[in-house]
Amino acid sequence: MTAREEMLRRVREALGGSRGPGPPVPRGYARRLPAAEAATRADVLALFTERVADNRAAVRHAGADEVGTAVAAALWGREAKEIVVPADVPFGWLAELDGVRALADAPALDLDALAAADGVVTGCAAAVAQTGTVVLDGGRAQGRRALTLVPGFHLCVVHADQIVGTVPEAVTRLDPARPLTWISGPSATHGIEATRVVGVHGPLHLEIILVED
Amino acid sequence: MTAREEMLRRVREALGGSRGPGPPVPRGYARRLPAAEAATRADVLALFTERVADNRAAVRHAGADEVGTAVAAALWGREAKEIVVPADVPFGWLAELDGVRALADAPALDLDALAAADGVVTGCAAAVAQTGTVVLDGGRAQGRRALTLVPGFHLCVVHADQIVGTVPEAVTRLDPARPLTWISGPSATHGIEATRVVGVHGPLHLEIILVED
Repeated sequence: MTAREEMLRRVREALGGSRGPGPPVPRGYARRLPAAEAATRADVLALFTERVADNRAAVRHAGADEVGTAVAAALWGREAKEIVVPADVPFGWLAELDGVRALADAPALDLDALAAADGVVTGCAAAVAQTGTVVLDGGRAQGRRALTLVPGFHLCVVHADQIVGTVPEAVTRLDPARPLTWISGPSATHGIEATRVVGVHGPLHLEIILVED
Repeated sequence: MTAREEMLRRVREALGGSRGPGPPVPRGYARRLPAAEAATRADVLALFTERVADNRAAVRHAGADEVGTAVAAALWGREAKEIVVPADVPFGWLAELDGVRALADAPALDLDALAAADGVVTGCAAAVAQTGTVVLDGGRAQGRRALTLVPGFHLCVVHADQIVGTVPEAVTRLDPARPLTWISGPSATHGIEATRVVGVHGPLHLEIILVED
């Protein structure tokens, strides 16, 4: 008997002879929202709005023609003077800015510029109603990761058709090979003392504009 | 013999008995550029640039990071003070405008506003080297037709990978169900006197920014 076999024998002995197959692990994940929670599309949007608020982020609703106005209102509300944006955000989102300077991240802004900005405006790749989450994948209107991690305020434009019910539904929409950032409310972290600290690893303030087309 | 048969008999008689199958009609359309003209990708871009110039339009070249600068330079060059744009043009294209006001077409601007504008900035759906043509299909960054037909100056951003060699190649890229606008130089038309008149049915001035990514 080798040392390994002897060790395993002792482990088995210590565990006892007849342990059975162990408790069953449930594998029936909730891949969709319960029918009661998501009877209509409006219910899904209402759930998203509610959960985003639970995550201590603000939500504004806007029609397709009102995105520029909603973005301007959100930035004025935070007294933002200078923001950064991915170069490919639709111009219409920023068309109403008055007294707010927008810097496009092309060529790439340096970290000092990102840190000095009063905020960043992006779109998203998908959003999850059940968890109040927005997901960025670096695609159109989302920019590189530093853009949404360095500035202290993130204003995210979410189109209603980007919102799914659950995380599994979002995963099926997303490309796992892309750099995915899942954002559920402002950045928050817990040290070993279990004290909640916000804004350390990302924006202290998150605000969402929900566009119902 | 019916009247129809009698008529056809007389037509055949008048045409003569033995006309043969008629002259052959060539069906071997030039679907691609001759190899000598398009040995490399750079040749295709050079041909596009040359043909656009032949069409009396100006071409500027820009790197992917320089589109904003090139757009600003083109507008300053025409002393434009106010332009109109589709709401979804990438913000980066307009990020360097200084002293030029951009109006997004959302909600839709009225015709007076379009007519009063000093120009319009759009992208395109495809471009053809052999004919120096840009094609708009109303898709992203292109807007509705009135936007590029009413203002007197059209500045069109073309990415190198949108340029194909020939019209047949462009047709295979485009969706025939979309409203396609094929633009080969500034608007020009000929009345019955065969006098060339420019700028009647569209922009008097066309300028193209060729972005080599």
